[in-house]
Amino acid sequence: MTNSQQDAMSLIESVLSGNRLALSRLLSQIENETSSGMAALRALFPHTGKAHLIGVTGAPGTGKSSLVNQLARGFRLPEEGKTARKVAIIAVDPSSPFTGGAILGDRIRMRDLAGDSGIFIRSMASRGSLGGLASATAGLVQVFDAAGYEIVLIETVGAGQGEVDIARLAHTTLVVEAPGLGDEVQAIKAGILEIADILVINKADRPGVENTERALRGNLELAHPTPRYFKNRGHTKKPAQNRDQAGQAALTTFWLPPIKKTVSTEGVGITEVLDEIDRHRDYLLQSGDWEIRDKARLQAELENRVRQMLFKDWQDSLPETEYRQTLDALFERQVSPLEAAEKLTGLKR
Amino acid sequence: MTNSQQDAMSLIESVLSGNRLALSRLLSQIENETSSGMAALRALFPHTGKAHLIGVTGAPGTGKSSLVNQLARGFRLPEEGKTARKVAIIAVDPSSPFTGGAILGDRIRMRDLAGDSGIFIRSMASRGSLGGLASATAGLVQVFDAAGYEIVLIETVGAGQGEVDIARLAHTTLVVEAPGLGDEVQAIKAGILEIADILVINKADRPGVENTERALRGNLELAHPTPRYFKNRGHTKKPAQNRDQAGQAALTTFWLPPIKKTVSTEGVGITEVLDEIDRHRDYLLQSGDWEIRDKARLQAELENRVRQMLFKDWQDSLPETEYRQTLDALFERQVSPLEAAEKLTGLKR
Repeated sequence: MTNSQQDAMSLIESVLSGNRLALSRLLSQIENETSSGMAALRALFPHTGKAHLIGVTGAPGTGKSSLVNQLARGFRLPEEGKTARKVAIIAVDPSSPFTGGAILGDRIRMRDLAGDSGIFIRSMASRGSLGGLASATAGLVQVFDAAGYEIVLIETVGAGQGEVDIARLAHTTLVVEAPGLGDEVQAIKAGILEIADILVINKADRPGVENTERALRGNLELAHPTPRYFKNRGHTKKPAQNRDQAGQAALTTFWLPPIKKTVSTEGVGITEVLDEIDRHRDYLLQSGDWEIRDKARLQAELENRVRQMLFKDWQDSLPETEYRQTLDALFERQVSPLEAAEKLTGLKR
Repeated sequence: MTNSQQDAMSLIESVLSGNRLALSRLLSQIENETSSGMAALRALFPHTGKAHLIGVTGAPGTGKSSLVNQLARGFRLPEEGKTARKVAIIAVDPSSPFTGGAILGDRIRMRDLAGDSGIFIRSMASRGSLGGLASATAGLVQVFDAAGYEIVLIETVGAGQGEVDIARLAHTTLVVEAPGLGDEVQAIKAGILEIADILVINKADRPGVENTERALRGNLELAHPTPRYFKNRGHTKKPAQNRDQAGQAALTTFWLPPIKKTVSTEGVGITEVLDEIDRHRDYLLQSGDWEIRDKARLQAELENRVRQMLFKDWQDSLPETEYRQTLDALFERQVSPLEAAEKLTGLKR
């Protein structure tokens, strides 16, 4: 057993016994991709697969963070008849190295959760590359999962492909909108609707909420070309009839993203969103989609790791002078980027 | 000479002689990465390096597209004493496969430019991966550059790392803000300010414009840790004195991102932004930063192509059964994603 494996084992034991300081240390090691962090990830992996991963994405200004806070509070302090669940929040903001602090400030306002040992909040700053960010996020999710956090909320700024990809890794994806974010927003919505399992119109006390809801419903129709919605569409032609006849069974055959309105700063509509999250979980488990999404996530993580390892190996094995000379030829425009890449890898496109 | 090389040569001749249909065809070939498209890219590459690449990025709702339209109009119909320049617009929206249409609709409103042969607009839909998107964008830029477009405006939704990376490839990056986009926007700004050469507050006739401007100025100060701003900071302590003593010469030593206010729907403030763009171009050329940014862009494109080629080669050479078996072990949680990646590549992390 190597030193880093021994370090990893003792850290893992502390994490599994509920030591928050150990958890925090392990998360840092995984973010920094240390050897003992990677060893811990291997050892913890068999313990994963139980947590419900919930992606929450939306443009700036939709009040996404505040909604995430309220959802966390709802999972911790549930209505009568439901049990409290342990909640981890991962706030991913690749565009801003400063957001960590800002979001933390926001969290601190959650006085009633501040001393709650069943909640853990982690902000992630930029990793330099999206591949690195996705790997690090996947690692954090696995640690929380293994450590018994039943709910992992992954919060991303949802306007770019990379963030969408991260959100897509969740079992359940919430897309958050808000009224009055301007004319361009319509265009964005259609694209992002494809990944939505639940649509939330936050700040629903603002003027224009009817327009936003109408636009969302319209765009849900527009979003036909996507496999998920397309697949569902046959079923949704007569949803009421379907449900009347088959009752609970209909649940397993299709999922039409519901649209829910909230005012997260006042806690309005949160219970309804929590109910939809649990309903979606039931749907996933009954339909087999839970397993399908799990597999897709693991495969994506594997391929992401492969990409990084291949590039690093290429960099390490390339003679510095050869790279310099090719770069110079590229800068002089004697070879194109594609030709240079072919030369340096010995591969054809 | 292969067939695809011959096809490429005749297409290139048509493009260089100003045939718009040929240009459009070539752009599609490059987007789809066809063999003749790639051959054309090689042949055109020596003709590139003249265009001024201008990235325009900002959150949804800032009126970015409308600003880009107005800037294009300004380059085409300049003030007296300036010459009209050929303008290409590349609208990149990776999050939405539908935006192409929406943006096109927006463009069509530009009646006075609709029949202008000196302007060319291209929308790019999602490429499936950010690497693919960046490569395709770089290819389009090179075609426009070689075809004599002196200005290439690259419009991205600026909230994700991937879009930021694309914008960063420009010589000059405009970051567009608007008043009243909500509380989370502040956090975003600090991060995105790092890449801004020119800050534009669009929709400046809206309430709250003073707050937005104050926040931007404050965040410009906060953005110290970034190399570019940090490097400049020593010089900006006494900018007035600097400028008085050295006059035009001071221009070459530092660039402090100016903040400009516009109402793009009414054409207000556009001339001032155009002037800043030209002033930034002069600064880049005088300081040597033009060349530095050119080289960084080419190197990033090279490495991006390398990443894609390495992964594709790995996929092609991997026996299907081995991949399947490893995936199954991963899904059963017998091996972690990292272990699986190490096994399938024969590499160590």
